[in-house]
Amino acid sequence: MSPTFFGIAQLNPVIGDLLGNCDRILTAVQKLAKQGVQLVLTPELSICGYPPRDLLMNHQFVRDMETAIAELASKLPPDVAVLVGTVSVNPQANQSGGKPLFNSAALLQDGRVQQVFHKRLLPTYDVFDEDRYFAVGNGSNVFTLNLKGGASLNIGVTICEDIWNDEKFWGKRNYADDPVAELATNHELDLLLNLSASPYAVGKQKLRESMLSHSAIMHNLPLLYANQVGANDDLIFDGRSMAFDRHGKIITRGKSFEEDLLVINLDEVSLDSSRYESDDAEIFAALVLGVRDYVQKCRFRQVVIGLSGGIDSALVAAIAAEAIGKENVLGVLMPSPYSSAHSITDAIALAHNLGISTQTIPIQPMMEAFDASLSNLFAGQTSDVTEENLQSRIRGSLLMAISNKFGHLLLSTGNKSEVSVGYCTLYGDMNGGLAAIADVPKTRVFSICKWLNRTSSLLMIKQENSEVIPVNIITKPPSAELKPDQLDQDSLPPYDILDDILHKLINQHLAAAEISATGHDPAIVDRVVRLVKIAEFKRRQAAPGLKITNRAFGSGWRMPIASKVT
Amino acid sequence: MSPTFFGIAQLNPVIGDLLGNCDRILTAVQKLAKQGVQLVLTPELSICGYPPRDLLMNHQFVRDMETAIAELASKLPPDVAVLVGTVSVNPQANQSGGKPLFNSAALLQDGRVQQVFHKRLLPTYDVFDEDRYFAVGNGSNVFTLNLKGGASLNIGVTICEDIWNDEKFWGKRNYADDPVAELATNHELDLLLNLSASPYAVGKQKLRESMLSHSAIMHNLPLLYANQVGANDDLIFDGRSMAFDRHGKIITRGKSFEEDLLVINLDEVSLDSSRYESDDAEIFAALVLGVRDYVQKCRFRQVVIGLSGGIDSALVAAIAAEAIGKENVLGVLMPSPYSSAHSITDAIALAHNLGISTQTIPIQPMMEAFDASLSNLFAGQTSDVTEENLQSRIRGSLLMAISNKFGHLLLSTGNKSEVSVGYCTLYGDMNGGLAAIADVPKTRVFSICKWLNRTSSLLMIKQENSEVIPVNIITKPPSAELKPDQLDQDSLPPYDILDDILHKLINQHLAAAEISATGHDPAIVDRVVRLVKIAEFKRRQAAPGLKITNRAFGSGWRMPIASKVT
Repeated sequence: MSPTFFGIAQLNPVIGDLLGNCDRILTAVQKLAKQGVQLVLTPELSICGYPPRDLLMNHQFVRDMETAIAELASKLPPDVAVLVGTVSVNPQANQSGGKPLFNSAALLQDGRVQQVFHKRLLPTYDVFDEDRYFAVGNGSNVFTLNLKGGASLNIGVTICEDIWNDEKFWGKRNYADDPVAELATNHELDLLLNLSASPYAVGKQKLRESMLSHSAIMHNLPLLYANQVGANDDLIFDGRSMAFDRHGKIITRGKSFEEDLLVINLDEVSLDSSRYESDDAEIFAALVLGVRDYVQKCRFRQVVIGLSGGIDSALVAAIAAEAIGKENVLGVLMPSPYSSAHSITDAIALAHNLGISTQTIPIQPMMEAFDASLSNLFAGQTSDVTEENLQSRIRGSLLMAISNKFGHLLLSTGNKSEVSVGYCTLYGDMNGGLAAIADVPKTRVFSICKWLNRTSSLLMIKQENSEVIPVNIITKPPSAELKPDQLDQDSLPPYDILDDILHKLINQHLAAAEISATGHDPAIVDRVVRLVKIAEFKRRQAAPGLKITNRAFGSGWRMPIASKVT
Repeated sequence: MSPTFFGIAQLNPVIGDLLGNCDRILTAVQKLAKQGVQLVLTPELSICGYPPRDLLMNHQFVRDMETAIAELASKLPPDVAVLVGTVSVNPQANQSGGKPLFNSAALLQDGRVQQVFHKRLLPTYDVFDEDRYFAVGNGSNVFTLNLKGGASLNIGVTICEDIWNDEKFWGKRNYADDPVAELATNHELDLLLNLSASPYAVGKQKLRESMLSHSAIMHNLPLLYANQVGANDDLIFDGRSMAFDRHGKIITRGKSFEEDLLVINLDEVSLDSSRYESDDAEIFAALVLGVRDYVQKCRFRQVVIGLSGGIDSALVAAIAAEAIGKENVLGVLMPSPYSSAHSITDAIALAHNLGISTQTIPIQPMMEAFDASLSNLFAGQTSDVTEENLQSRIRGSLLMAISNKFGHLLLSTGNKSEVSVGYCTLYGDMNGGLAAIADVPKTRVFSICKWLNRTSSLLMIKQENSEVIPVNIITKPPSAELKPDQLDQDSLPPYDILDDILHKLINQHLAAAEISATGHDPAIVDRVVRLVKIAEFKRRQAAPGLKITNRAFGSGWRMPIASKVT
């Protein structure tokens, strides 16, 4: 038997754009067919993009998917079998109870839909809401692929979460059923497939590789894994589709954070060697994709960013310049009487390093106008956070005026540490269509900026041997500069302590007493826990933030506001 | 046998306040015990309040619930059986797969937890996310209550959704199982109980009554239904706990929108006769509760509202005055050069009618300061929506300054029609901690205001024979007054047409072609559909809005932003 080539189309869909996504699949399959593949795998829900969320409640949208997939089937090369991700109607919903749709994979071949397979394990945790839309799949997820040489293969189909319940790997069951074990036990399989839309998080790829390898070994089966790439609102999908042989050895890995077409020969190893040199490098690449896709999928071309001279806005500007090009990034300096001289020079130096243009608009005239207009009402009151917030809101209004006037998307620059404890102004510095680093803790902001300066990786924003972020931005103590001589550390614990507490509280679900037991001052822990709770009303109105950890604020964080935890 | 008295404690919990909620239950049971009840029913999750949302992911919170419930059991009168709503740990989660918790009802008697029953049907649609947290219950939800006279009753326990799958009533199955039918078939029941936290929506009470009556008749069983009351963020719970006899006749109904203790004798009819004279009256009462609870549970005392002289802010001010007292409501007038004379006089007349205080802050000085500061950058550009939004953002910043300085909660005043199509300014008039009428269509805003003026119902804000909303506010054409001679109707279809299209699109899930087929101009329908889609980024950053329909924006509306529907 001559080598059988399989193809994986690692694509970046636009949510809801059925025609565009089908075109993308068609083009990919045509290219792969020219290289001799007989079967092409696409990611989960590749027709509509993942996650379609409540678009699935529009009946017409579901009907349109059926039309689109039939049309796609009729256009595909006839001698290639293609698995596309789609939804299908659950015909038994009203009689037997259950959600109206399945999350499915359709096998397209010879001009039509040959078979449809349904997802069985429906993730409903963190950012996932699949029980909201889908019924648990039933039926046999197996098909036979007749190869050109005359042989045939028995192939098992799984969809994303279906492959994440390997009891031996996890040491526990996440769901009652293990679709992979059932497929392997009940059928004489030659190959296992998985269509995925698995979002990025730091460290997740290592987990995926060891888990998938374990499954391949456990069942003595080669495994092809197609993952979506691209960012959709808060979720970044990293791609990195993979193939494993039956010994669990990884033989092909697709690109990270970009589209890729993989041709797989199960007898040959062909690994993309590009690994990130550090988590910092990987996170930067993820955020670049997150910003680029949000900008482009929302049909913007340019962005505007408030440049404070601080490290957060510096990092966001660097991400934006790398994502959409320096010529499409406008930095706006809005100094106040409380701004330090270095806040201007540092911001200008940053803009120079990045090659982005700037505008400077001092805010004192607006501050004076607000103060005068409020002077009667505020007579006898002492100056407090009100006046600080006003400065931030004036800046937010100026940035939105520029956004409105020129059609630029405003990127907000708050990091996870300050968003956690509410060290930010609602309707002020929180303004923006996308919060680029809202899931990046402050200590990580520093380490990414340091990495940016020393990296030799290929970056568009990087000149050889030059710094990206001016050193003074990294070394000076962080300050909001909303009153004289203000420093973050006057209001907050040191960031290394704060971030460790926040990580234990948010990402590890520890209680205050448990966090204190790891060596933190209980008074500081209690204060941080309280600050996180009372900042909930701000986060509820925050822009979508790009998720890079296992627990981000946003669609996977659902906390009550009006509450009292005793 | 002497009549057996049952009690329902229709309580308003604070989410997460385990000690406070247990105290509330204890006091209620003590009062009911004095009236001779032998069994008290409380609402679903009465220990922690519904919905606790991701608080359930904090292990310590779950442990604290176990402690609180044991403590409560030890304090309760020994001769009363009490069913409280709580969560309990699923001990099989790791072995058999499934979520770590059950949504449970604990039977407290003789100083301890006697039995625990688990919810079987877990709503995961609209605002409900129960599959995110809970495993499907198993085990027998039956207990025996030994009455004082020596007799005993077999009692079946269901929790909220468990009773919402009566196939004959709905004409279809919503879930595979029907816990009520199974209980009634497998046990010789004397009584059926239901612990609920069922949120308010217009028209829902009628549905509940006919459904519960149908279940009582179907199974020839008396039925006691305890519903939560009170508002938690976006959700308003209306109470209206009920008792039905075995013939499906309603014999007791608790108060709407307030706490109530019901003593039920299954042989006697004792109905609260207070019914609302109209949907307008009912919605007003719901919104009053929604505002009051959000203010109080967030520990505010006073609110501030921007009074434009228009009908939306007029209604919100009336709701607030009724909710927390006129002395706690501050109206702020912020006229611009584009404000009409009547916008001032109408707002002042409204404040006079309501008895609320006002402040007036003209915004021209801030407008001029922004214009001057942006003049270089905007040179050669024509005036557009940028300048309109700036006015709105100046007002929003002033209101937030007042909120910050005096600790007043800012209520935002956008109605559902404008929030749907994005006829509102992000970081401007959308500012606020709570969006009081975000689920109220503009046509309904008018009808509620007209009802307010003619009602003879007992309202705190209503003087005998006086109008609440100045007639001119109701009769003048709506305008944002952000440029000369501007009217809403210049930008939007007439509100009766717009609201009908929006209702069909949002609440009935119809597609554009289906809406046009009901008699609307297809061009207008397409435009509205498009406006709703592109306003998603604004809604994502909106304040929580009180839900009064079957589909509100907020926790039950999960739409992608970066998307393209072809």
